[in-house]
Amino acid sequence: MAIKPVDLKKAYRLLQVGPTTMISAKHDGIENVMAAAWVGLVGNNKVMAYIGKQAFTRELVEKSGYYVVHVPTVQQMETVLYVGEHSAKEMDNKLEHIPLFYQEEFDLPLVEGSAGWLVCKVIPNAQNEQELDLFMGEIVGAWSDDRVFNNGHWIFDDAPDELRTVHYVAGGQFYAIGKGTKFNHGPGKD
Amino acid sequence: MAIKPVDLKKAYRLLQVGPTTMISAKHDGIENVMAAAWVGLVGNNKVMAYIGKQAFTRELVEKSGYYVVHVPTVQQMETVLYVGEHSAKEMDNKLEHIPLFYQEEFDLPLVEGSAGWLVCKVIPNAQNEQELDLFMGEIVGAWSDDRVFNNGHWIFDDAPDELRTVHYVAGGQFYAIGKGTKFNHGPGKD
Repeated sequence: MAIKPVDLKKAYRLLQVGPTTMISAKHDGIENVMAAAWVGLVGNNKVMAYIGKQAFTRELVEKSGYYVVHVPTVQQMETVLYVGEHSAKEMDNKLEHIPLFYQEEFDLPLVEGSAGWLVCKVIPNAQNEQELDLFMGEIVGAWSDDRVFNNGHWIFDDAPDELRTVHYVAGGQFYAIGKGTKFNHGPGKD
Repeated sequence: MAIKPVDLKKAYRLLQVGPTTMISAKHDGIENVMAAAWVGLVGNNKVMAYIGKQAFTRELVEKSGYYVVHVPTVQQMETVLYVGEHSAKEMDNKLEHIPLFYQEEFDLPLVEGSAGWLVCKVIPNAQNEQELDLFMGEIVGAWSDDRVFNNGHWIFDDAPDELRTVHYVAGGQFYAIGKGTKFNHGPGKD
């Protein structure tokens, strides 16, 4: 496998399948990773992420102005639950067993084993951040595991099942993305 | 099958799997339905929907203060593409072949065949609506097809495949939700 850069015009497709995500951030040498179920697209180049005031990661995002949205895979489901169940406010070594790596250009930690990673630069909006706990970010960098997302397209049907995206419901229940189908269609309207 | 009310405390789970959606609205007797890929949860009782200024549905939402987020199924994929490809601004009878029904309490059209429906009452926010095309809504009503979502839980593995949620990517390509798994886990933290 290779981790390849994703054309920023097509990076939104990493999120458009609606996966549960993880969010990482770093400030002043301090890293954290959290689980984030409520991350949505705003058009095809921006992300809106719900980061509650209890989240340790929130302070890192506020101070650094960046966060990374991960698109986790089935093989990472226990990691997603782990980072969601443990707070860095309550343990110093939360990430001790989480394999992280870095890409050039961005001093942001990426968790190994995801299908894709989107670097988001915060577009400050005090009202949304303080009143709604929403952090909007412009997608400024993206990579994918080329076994599952390549040339701007998901290729789940050709990839190992453990690389399928995860879609969390509640109480430990999740679904993997399933069967693909292709329709002919014209331009979107309303 | 039966269309059952969903406990509003658990209605967010209809969207948490990250489906592509349809949005319907009605004002002054005029109905419309649009496709909406960019609809996300904001916490467990609110929705944020991207509704572009070109959308005919937008005016109905602005004037009525309500919209309905649909959770479409595989059997509706052509309907999702149809309502996304045709604008009510360009045809008078866009919904002619779209089977609609109504529930008591709400004068809002629901498209038959979806897995779930969430009535959202707009929480006005001029900046988000005008600058970002985002309409936040509080979930004030919800129903599901009890063959696929019942007692607050998705039961895809026991339901017909044509009732699985759809996760659109681009260019007519979509994936259905897939295999389910259950993990034991504790309360969510960060």
